[in-house]
Amino acid sequence: MVTRLSHFFLRTLREDPADAEVSSHRLLVRAGYIRRAAPGIFTWLPLGLRVKAKIESVIREEMTNAGAYEVHFPALLPREPYESSGRWNSYGDGIFRLQDRKGADYLLAPTHEEMFTLLVKDLYSSYKDLPLAIYQIQDKYRDEARPRAGLLRGREFTMKDAYSFDYTDEGQDASYQSQRDAYERIFQKLGLEYVIVAADNGLMGGARSEEFLHPTPIGEDSFVRSAGGYAANVEAFTTTAPAPIPFEGLGEPVIFDSPNTPTIQTLVDHANAHLDAPADGIAGPATDGAAEWTAAHTLKNVVLALTHLDGTRELVIVGIPGDRDVDDKRAEVAFAPAAVEAATEQDFENNPLLVKGYIGPWSETGAVLGEQSATGIRYLLDPRVVDGTAWMTGANIDEKHVHTLVAGRDFTGDGFVEVANVRAGDPAPDGSGPVEIARGMEIGHVFQLGRFFADALGLKVLDENGKLVTVTMGSYGIGVTRILAIIAELNNDEKGLIWPASVAPFDVHVVATGREPVVFEVSEKLSAELEASGLDVLYDDRPKVSPGVKFGDAELVGVPQIVIVGRGAADGQVELWDRRTGDREVVPVAEVAARLAAR
Amino acid sequence: MVTRLSHFFLRTLREDPADAEVSSHRLLVRAGYIRRAAPGIFTWLPLGLRVKAKIESVIREEMTNAGAYEVHFPALLPREPYESSGRWNSYGDGIFRLQDRKGADYLLAPTHEEMFTLLVKDLYSSYKDLPLAIYQIQDKYRDEARPRAGLLRGREFTMKDAYSFDYTDEGQDASYQSQRDAYERIFQKLGLEYVIVAADNGLMGGARSEEFLHPTPIGEDSFVRSAGGYAANVEAFTTTAPAPIPFEGLGEPVIFDSPNTPTIQTLVDHANAHLDAPADGIAGPATDGAAEWTAAHTLKNVVLALTHLDGTRELVIVGIPGDRDVDDKRAEVAFAPAAVEAATEQDFENNPLLVKGYIGPWSETGAVLGEQSATGIRYLLDPRVVDGTAWMTGANIDEKHVHTLVAGRDFTGDGFVEVANVRAGDPAPDGSGPVEIARGMEIGHVFQLGRFFADALGLKVLDENGKLVTVTMGSYGIGVTRILAIIAELNNDEKGLIWPASVAPFDVHVVATGREPVVFEVSEKLSAELEASGLDVLYDDRPKVSPGVKFGDAELVGVPQIVIVGRGAADGQVELWDRRTGDREVVPVAEVAARLAAR
Repeated sequence: MVTRLSHFFLRTLREDPADAEVSSHRLLVRAGYIRRAAPGIFTWLPLGLRVKAKIESVIREEMTNAGAYEVHFPALLPREPYESSGRWNSYGDGIFRLQDRKGADYLLAPTHEEMFTLLVKDLYSSYKDLPLAIYQIQDKYRDEARPRAGLLRGREFTMKDAYSFDYTDEGQDASYQSQRDAYERIFQKLGLEYVIVAADNGLMGGARSEEFLHPTPIGEDSFVRSAGGYAANVEAFTTTAPAPIPFEGLGEPVIFDSPNTPTIQTLVDHANAHLDAPADGIAGPATDGAAEWTAAHTLKNVVLALTHLDGTRELVIVGIPGDRDVDDKRAEVAFAPAAVEAATEQDFENNPLLVKGYIGPWSETGAVLGEQSATGIRYLLDPRVVDGTAWMTGANIDEKHVHTLVAGRDFTGDGFVEVANVRAGDPAPDGSGPVEIARGMEIGHVFQLGRFFADALGLKVLDENGKLVTVTMGSYGIGVTRILAIIAELNNDEKGLIWPASVAPFDVHVVATGREPVVFEVSEKLSAELEASGLDVLYDDRPKVSPGVKFGDAELVGVPQIVIVGRGAADGQVELWDRRTGDREVVPVAEVAARLAAR
Repeated sequence: MVTRLSHFFLRTLREDPADAEVSSHRLLVRAGYIRRAAPGIFTWLPLGLRVKAKIESVIREEMTNAGAYEVHFPALLPREPYESSGRWNSYGDGIFRLQDRKGADYLLAPTHEEMFTLLVKDLYSSYKDLPLAIYQIQDKYRDEARPRAGLLRGREFTMKDAYSFDYTDEGQDASYQSQRDAYERIFQKLGLEYVIVAADNGLMGGARSEEFLHPTPIGEDSFVRSAGGYAANVEAFTTTAPAPIPFEGLGEPVIFDSPNTPTIQTLVDHANAHLDAPADGIAGPATDGAAEWTAAHTLKNVVLALTHLDGTRELVIVGIPGDRDVDDKRAEVAFAPAAVEAATEQDFENNPLLVKGYIGPWSETGAVLGEQSATGIRYLLDPRVVDGTAWMTGANIDEKHVHTLVAGRDFTGDGFVEVANVRAGDPAPDGSGPVEIARGMEIGHVFQLGRFFADALGLKVLDENGKLVTVTMGSYGIGVTRILAIIAELNNDEKGLIWPASVAPFDVHVVATGREPVVFEVSEKLSAELEASGLDVLYDDRPKVSPGVKFGDAELVGVPQIVIVGRGAADGQVELWDRRTGDREVVPVAEVAARLAAR
């Protein structure tokens, strides 16, 4: 049935919504796709719902092709399964919790791993039942601290989440690959360019984790990639440690006065003014030959405070090259599930052995940092701080530093940690060359959960030998409403939206201009004909609206093909208008259907 | 794509679920359509989701035909709109409430009148924008005190709710009729017999309210209907009041001793033992000529306690013929939004003028019941208690009653009230004859909201004269998951479900029996052919499952057409099995597609 604008539930708006920070939010509201109901919570208007349904239909088709079956879990769920997995607590403020009239605890599910696991446990018991892939397309809830950017970070949002179930690691790899392939097909169909980047696999302990990112300068995520094909998000990037260096020939630690040098820059300036240039055996072979001291010669010791899940607070010190900073996201992943923040003044007061601005792992009287040291504070090193590298760092005495302090000889850490920021030019871990830093938007995530949830909830099956084995799972998510917003974000101009044909709310927008009856007769007939040929037609049949307003609405709404029926209608001529290129072309009305089909 | 049982996510269960009271619940769980997640909250398995999608698709089609556009509101909504309409409080314990991390109040919407009203207010402003009909298919929430009967009374459920918007009453009538017609088409397509009954129009004050009931002896609702075409639910039935009777010739009230007669039955027995038979002018013309006293001669005064929305408690006394009882549902509707319960001992202690078992409106010293009486308690009469009818009732003295007490002469009420139960044989209010009482299940509800929500939320538009007028609304609901359960409830036998073709999860179920390769080859080819012809095929390709188990599963799952491929396969013969009639017929495999298409 042709949809007529004279009756359709649509009002375009002239003004941008006051709270819109990004173009997808601004345009989806102005063009009448969505409407704000509460912070981060939106009402879907008919246009928006049509686009959403098209995206869902592409996803469903490829899930079916991947052998996954659709189920649907409740959004309102009891506490118990989330208690078993530990997530009732670990979600913190990030979820909506409530009680029913009997006082039983419930939550609005932000994700359904527990329920999928329990459902399969409930119904399946044998290796013969596996592999299995099931998915749902469902409205989910997260109580974001700062809902923003419209649909990009909402509190109610639609996700497709799929899970695979296998009883062997090989099976799990095959299931993973099948979903990964389906994701490639989905994004290809949606016309969304993507890069598959290695991602952190989090707490679950599964072997593989990859994100699908759409590369775009306006992306909110950074990722790194090499010309040789390596790609990873910043959290998953692993530093290539240099080979250890023999201690022979390295000088001894030298303490020197360094008044008023609490920062790396003041220290470097001081060293260049008062010390000899960094020479062999002083600054260490890794930076041999440098004409002067630089931040790269220094070892920066950063005091962090972790808050563990049980509420305990632990100080930890990370030693990283002075020319790098702690990357918050990498630190978050490195210390998860603990929360990380900078140490406070109070923390320093509680640890008087730490001389602020002059902290280092070593003193003449023994180790200062590390679990076995005077402070007892855990000390973790950047992977570049290998044995035999020599560093300039704090001497744990006010206004004194030390240089030619050799890792593995003069100090050691309790382990290594990936918290330093990644820089363009850093070597890709797979040897494929230096990386560049790019920006992208996350559009999908596939990862192996391994046996985390199956262990927590007791999902086991009997294997070929009648032995109970724990099932291994994969998790595969796409944010449906997020994808919609990203497509809108990437497909617009100053006039409005420009939908790719695969997800456009209508295939063609017929605009009748002027007041002559023939225009409406031709438009009517053409619209019916196009609809009969299988196209979804939006027909602007509004009788008393000016051509300018109609064109403006058509540009704002963004249906990719527009047909203008105007003065030429009496002679059987109409105009085809390509919303993306802006090209207009006069064609006989009899050819419109064929021409549109050809596009 | 053919769905293969060897991979499909389905496990049928041998045992009925322990908590299943009704056959739809029992069979939908056993046959693998749904699974319990929490009390009144269900997970949808692939089979169930397919049936649900088919029902939704029928509804969407007819909503489109009725000119309604689909939108989708959030389930999680802020308090404010519900505060404006008064429903945040009036819902009481019946809804789920929660707070976000900032302490703002939210609810899980049980229904969306407020949001629809605000959306239209937000976007529309002129009579030219109307009429408008919009709808959604959405998961809704009610915190039922006793969730039960599976999907029939759940706490999370799917509804289609449509609303119409007009600026004139005539427009509203047309919109109402359009939705009412769409409902008829929907239920016809779903193969659900229905009766349209007049329903109570509740607090909203709209003019029309009708329920679609499926008539069935196992229905949970009673309704009344006459041979002449009247139909109403019990709450909406209106009593036909008899004509008033002249007072002339009626006797005077007679007080008589009536020890130990606190109930109607003991009173009637006492009267027949000790009084003259009810004669002209004594029992009153309405029952003239009766040989003995009956309950119908008596006036029963029932003390009810109302709790108003503001929490205040009010006693009210209803006077109804002694051969009838107070119908709880009718009383609930009559006194809504106040809650009704029987008066307590405490209430009687607080009102010493009420002589329990001997309450009546009259005493020799003046009126006892009524706002202007000694007690000041509001007194409402059954519509049959018209002026000139004479009654036997309590005399407000312990162990004394009075007869020949004439309404309008000796006592009056503060008004009339419809709380007495309806009985077979009562006259239909439209004069179409006596009614019978039948049972049914509610499958849809259409009603005019009038201007209740538009007034509460300020939805006005400019009319033709530039004057602001309040919009009038209609509300049209179908419980999607409830309909699914009702269809299951009505279509099953002792072996399992039997779906109507319009909503069956698959069109045909191909069962390969035996172990010979030819059976699987023929089944495979036939399944592919049927799928290619446009049918949804479920193919039981499980290699090591006995025919008995496969047949049992087919009967339980309830796909209406089954094809058995067995020994005859080598000779090109298969069996067509009609799940509903049980008929089996051997047909050449080449004819199966045509034969199924013919059904």
